[in-house]
Amino acid sequence: MIGRLNHVAIAVPDLDAACAQYRGALGAVVGAPQDEPDHGVTVVFVELPNTKIEFLYPLGDNSPITGFLEKNPAGGIHHICYEVDDIMAARDRLQAEGARVLGSGEPKIGAHGKLVLFLHPKDFNGCLIELEEA
Amino acid sequence: MIGRLNHVAIAVPDLDAACAQYRGALGAVVGAPQDEPDHGVTVVFVELPNTKIEFLYPLGDNSPITGFLEKNPAGGIHHICYEVDDIMAARDRLQAEGARVLGSGEPKIGAHGKLVLFLHPKDFNGCLIELEEA
Repeated sequence: MIGRLNHVAIAVPDLDAACAQYRGALGAVVGAPQDEPDHGVTVVFVELPNTKIEFLYPLGDNSPITGFLEKNPAGGIHHICYEVDDIMAARDRLQAEGARVLGSGEPKIGAHGKLVLFLHPKDFNGCLIELEEA
Repeated sequence: MIGRLNHVAIAVPDLDAACAQYRGALGAVVGAPQDEPDHGVTVVFVELPNTKIEFLYPLGDNSPITGFLEKNPAGGIHHICYEVDDIMAARDRLQAEGARVLGSGEPKIGAHGKLVLFLHPKDFNGCLIELEEA
């Protein structure tokens, strides 16, 4: 069912420093910051040959990243995102297996303009998983 | 400098359950467990179309994963691995930028039989990074 690894999301405490480090020391292709006010984050994509790294930085007063950075002041891996062909079918299959979908259980439009869902980390080896309809 | 994302490593508290979940509910191609006594881990690779997920489970009395699972009983993302063409050049470049390489600073043979190094998470947004010579 799951397809490509769409991205690995890393919450960073200093977006400029993270971009400079990946562009400089690590020699990667780093995009421009994009504010996503609906999601409370500013995102930057690092383009690797086979997938992307997504930097997440808090935007606004109710960012979902603020609490994560309070617990992890140096930053840390926030989630990984798997692509699926049909997000409703994926949700139904996972819920039938007893896995918990976060929030209302209805897909939302994610930062890439695609339908996304998040799965409960406790049900997936402590790992927050985003599913994105490819 | 960095190339493909070789894998995302997830430390799991129950290897059989993780394999069954990825094979079943998530419908992925999951390999057979491989004991790596030199690294204190049993590994399983999940093959995605563009990269791999590596499950890590403790093997033996001095596994580097035991402490991680004590701190994260549900499991969690342990590291991500970027490929590089020349690991010695990568090390020298990163050290010149002030980044810390873990251990002796000399590459070792990793779980895939390739030369690897680990970079200090505090220097990389709280994220443990493995570099593997492709």
